[in-house]
Amino acid sequence: MTIEHLKELATNCRGDILKMTSVANSGHPGGSMSSIDLLVTLYSFANVFPNDPWNENRDRIIISHGHISPAVYSTLAAYGFVDREKVISGFRHPSSIFEGHITRGIPGVEWTTGNLGQGLSAGVGMALAAKFKNKDYHVYVLMSDGESAKGQVTEARRTASKYKLNNLTVIVDYNDIQISGRAKDIMYVDLKKEYEAAGWKTIEIDGHDYEQILSALKIAKKDNSPTVIIAHTIIGKGVSFMEDKPDYHGKPLNREELEHALNELNIENDIEKFIKIRDSLPIVEHEKIKLEYDVKINTGKPRIYTEKTDNRTALGRAIADLAINNNNVVAVDCDLKGSVKLNILDKERPDRIIEIGVQEHNAAALAGALSVEGFVTFFADFGVFGIDETFNQHRLNAINHTNLKVVVTHCGIDVGEDGKTHHALNYISAPTSWFGFKVIVPVDPNQTDRVVRYVASRYGNFVVAMGRSKLEPIKKEDGTIFFDENYEFKYGKIDVLREGNDAVIITMGSIIPHAIKAVDELKREGIDVALLNVSCPLDLDEETLARYSRTKILVLEDHNVFNGLGKMIEAKLFEMRILPEKFLKVGIDRFPVSGDYKYLFKLFGLDKEGIIKNIKILFEE
Amino acid sequence: MTIEHLKELATNCRGDILKMTSVANSGHPGGSMSSIDLLVTLYSFANVFPNDPWNENRDRIIISHGHISPAVYSTLAAYGFVDREKVISGFRHPSSIFEGHITRGIPGVEWTTGNLGQGLSAGVGMALAAKFKNKDYHVYVLMSDGESAKGQVTEARRTASKYKLNNLTVIVDYNDIQISGRAKDIMYVDLKKEYEAAGWKTIEIDGHDYEQILSALKIAKKDNSPTVIIAHTIIGKGVSFMEDKPDYHGKPLNREELEHALNELNIENDIEKFIKIRDSLPIVEHEKIKLEYDVKINTGKPRIYTEKTDNRTALGRAIADLAINNNNVVAVDCDLKGSVKLNILDKERPDRIIEIGVQEHNAAALAGALSVEGFVTFFADFGVFGIDETFNQHRLNAINHTNLKVVVTHCGIDVGEDGKTHHALNYISAPTSWFGFKVIVPVDPNQTDRVVRYVASRYGNFVVAMGRSKLEPIKKEDGTIFFDENYEFKYGKIDVLREGNDAVIITMGSIIPHAIKAVDELKREGIDVALLNVSCPLDLDEETLARYSRTKILVLEDHNVFNGLGKMIEAKLFEMRILPEKFLKVGIDRFPVSGDYKYLFKLFGLDKEGIIKNIKILFEE
Repeated sequence: MTIEHLKELATNCRGDILKMTSVANSGHPGGSMSSIDLLVTLYSFANVFPNDPWNENRDRIIISHGHISPAVYSTLAAYGFVDREKVISGFRHPSSIFEGHITRGIPGVEWTTGNLGQGLSAGVGMALAAKFKNKDYHVYVLMSDGESAKGQVTEARRTASKYKLNNLTVIVDYNDIQISGRAKDIMYVDLKKEYEAAGWKTIEIDGHDYEQILSALKIAKKDNSPTVIIAHTIIGKGVSFMEDKPDYHGKPLNREELEHALNELNIENDIEKFIKIRDSLPIVEHEKIKLEYDVKINTGKPRIYTEKTDNRTALGRAIADLAINNNNVVAVDCDLKGSVKLNILDKERPDRIIEIGVQEHNAAALAGALSVEGFVTFFADFGVFGIDETFNQHRLNAINHTNLKVVVTHCGIDVGEDGKTHHALNYISAPTSWFGFKVIVPVDPNQTDRVVRYVASRYGNFVVAMGRSKLEPIKKEDGTIFFDENYEFKYGKIDVLREGNDAVIITMGSIIPHAIKAVDELKREGIDVALLNVSCPLDLDEETLARYSRTKILVLEDHNVFNGLGKMIEAKLFEMRILPEKFLKVGIDRFPVSGDYKYLFKLFGLDKEGIIKNIKILFEE
Repeated sequence: MTIEHLKELATNCRGDILKMTSVANSGHPGGSMSSIDLLVTLYSFANVFPNDPWNENRDRIIISHGHISPAVYSTLAAYGFVDREKVISGFRHPSSIFEGHITRGIPGVEWTTGNLGQGLSAGVGMALAAKFKNKDYHVYVLMSDGESAKGQVTEARRTASKYKLNNLTVIVDYNDIQISGRAKDIMYVDLKKEYEAAGWKTIEIDGHDYEQILSALKIAKKDNSPTVIIAHTIIGKGVSFMEDKPDYHGKPLNREELEHALNELNIENDIEKFIKIRDSLPIVEHEKIKLEYDVKINTGKPRIYTEKTDNRTALGRAIADLAINNNNVVAVDCDLKGSVKLNILDKERPDRIIEIGVQEHNAAALAGALSVEGFVTFFADFGVFGIDETFNQHRLNAINHTNLKVVVTHCGIDVGEDGKTHHALNYISAPTSWFGFKVIVPVDPNQTDRVVRYVASRYGNFVVAMGRSKLEPIKKEDGTIFFDENYEFKYGKIDVLREGNDAVIITMGSIIPHAIKAVDELKREGIDVALLNVSCPLDLDEETLARYSRTKILVLEDHNVFNGLGKMIEAKLFEMRILPEKFLKVGIDRFPVSGDYKYLFKLFGLDKEGIIKNIKILFEE
């Protein structure tokens, strides 16, 4: 494409940016105008296919500052990925896929962004995927200077260097304006020095000079390291009264301003046409964009554990089994492989473990991106880091409808001595904030083994959460293995571990071994208590609940009692219009102290004696 | 203190580190041994007072890698801050304050750490506090090389440079070993280059050479910029078989190893004595350490709004009023001052706004630290950044029992066109994970004004959450202002905005204006519906709930319906053993699309028409 042609396209795109934001009376024209020359040039240079947008050999283009959606949509329309009229008339309308921030699944859009600073991590994930797949596609990440202050960006940079991702290029739209003023004044980021400190090659260019942009893209594609192109730009570029002004960051032009601007650009003002179309759009939600792929995986032969084992070992063993049987399984570790038992994978299939160090935000986001590239991706971590620390990264993964398996160990006070900073107490509640995530809390090594193979075989996001300590495999009353070779995991099913008519204990995870002992002792005393294992707390099995909930109920949890299993069961029984005779819930209601987990279970009334005492409270008048 | 004396102290501390971890059979001896020379020297050099540990002129020492607690406790014991026998016998026992990770409030401990990478932000907060208070104390942050990979650390570095914090010194224990092996191999961080890129002065030393340590501390204290001392150390230093081995990162010595080690150190093995004491300790939680201070604040004269105003303006106005009336009020902004209305403060009291840019993790943590230094601290942000993105930072603030006011705007679909990445839907549920946090959702500008003044006057952590759009001040049926000059905010109280006998709508925040219109219209149709405003969803007022909950209930929320107000009311009514005739809850059950908030309210059945329709469903057979 000639420079002249690029210039013409960019001018038309500038017009479209201004039109769609004015038609919607909402959006971000300023940064769109500073990025547009970069975008138009990039989409012409990159190996992308408007008529076959998801071709697996395509270059991946990620726009990290998703609020410049007008620039992205106008570029995609200019190259024929999407329909221009639909873009300009539908922008930010509920019936349109052209939302305020760009959405994965629109032809040409690889990743939903909007929460700043996460795009480079996604780019690293996709660049790693290329290496795993032996593909030579290139990954481009366009980002803003303002978001470059996010710490997660530095984590992603180092990761790119570690994995020698020469197939990764970052372009920074350095317009030096963010919402509150000059980027330099608000929080100075010495981009060149920072990227160099991380081992990247840097190129500085004028981001409005097509020849310089093309030349930099060529160098970046060929060199043998990740490269950043720092493109100096002007916000609002192309319209005199918008240039270098922060005012138009998030504010569209009014009608009069638009008239002036289009006049300057020598573009006809035809927005009435688009407004008319917009006014006729129905107030409905646009159809969901299909984002799933078929997961082809051999889940292998389940393993049966008969000896005392921690669930972590069953987890690590099953992941390694899956990776040996399949080429599309990877795991991401944050310097805890010995504890989360990815050391088994590391030994048996070292090419399928990615070690990110203490950089959880980056790790969670790149794991999400890897998962949409066809890899069943396990993100393994302690509960506090894999859930609490990465809360918003998983929210964005959920928005991206990824295929991520968040497997967290060391949940609850079962962790013991490491104390309250390390007691993960929100592993079932936090995921309720990530629409579509399912949560499974397997109770013993046998159920863990089956659950890991199950989640690997289903597209979608799962949390699999477990404690730390070793435990005997759960057995039936006759002493045989409960989750034996005939057991098949069914999502949502409640396991009835013990039958009983006088009361029921409903619990999950690491409390079960204590509860079994308590139930067995209570039976000897003549109190006949049933025991239910809830491995899927977010999707409670109403049938089993109804059957056991008419008498006295004790809910126990090694979890925050203000938002955990007890509350979920209360709400569910209320919805089912069931008020049992008596109800008591016991869990963690304060930051715990540090101590042997057996002591902590005792302090919270969750050991055998505490459980018996709590059951007896239910029988008091 | 002579070098000879330092050496002797450090040797004794090494012995104590090994003893306490072996007595507890838990803990992190390796990193403790590499840090101990730095710690012993630092506590001798710094201006700290064992007999007056909270003297307001003391230097602040923050240990970011809280797992080296054995090193910290042994140092504190050596200098007389705490009792040595209690440390060695009680370490990691529930009845002891000497927990697995160091805890704020132990004499000499300024900040609870354990989640890596947050300590430097806390140090920046305390160094900023010194500037605000015109104090010349110095802030020292000791951290590990492994945690230096956390992105938040780079955010904190830049902030220190921006605010020219020459009263801040970082010491990195660079032992080049983390859990999984060499730090260099796991995730290389070029510390010198990175700190220099952020404008810091760097000094490299041998971290086991007392003269070099002292000399570096002297230089760092005097120079006019923040300085990092990169101290090259050896993990396990002092015991031949532990040196440079990752094995002892998180594993104590067994009895035989301990015997060898103490022998090498020429220290008597007297652990039997400590084990005996430990065995006699009761299995109880140690007493809480008192961490609050008296908040002295003039809350000023409330403002009454009679015109359509957004809550954000009332928020920003009240914060500015407070800062004008008091010297102990500060606010932290993340490049959104125009949107969260800190621009009023910025205009009227520019010395009390701290601008952190797009670095929310660092901002949230430094705001927490500022708040324990006597400042009523407002951390203002959009809901998705101030709640979701900073989830784990606030969890650590909660653990530190800070005095932080997290004021978040742009909550819910009320945000409209920016779409799902920007719709904060967990602003009442996420804080249930942070024990002690209270949540307030003020409904209109008048209540917002009163709530802001209220939270400023109470020690403790609060979330104050609001939407974006402008709304009429809530009025009584007679047309007068509801939250008028006689109104006093009472935490937990439910406001009865409309009386009614046939049904009740229970809701909060931005839905109320729509609900009032619906209720008024329903009354005209002969359906008599009460309307309750829940401004404190985590502490539901049982008396009011009971009075209105016998008939038909409709709960509405601009919040995730799976973990929000509806679920909380279901659980509460269940606990109160109330089953109303009919119950329906309506909220956000999927990621919303992008669009005008009025359209989105319609799509989710939350506008006037939707509410009327939902009420009528309750009256169907």
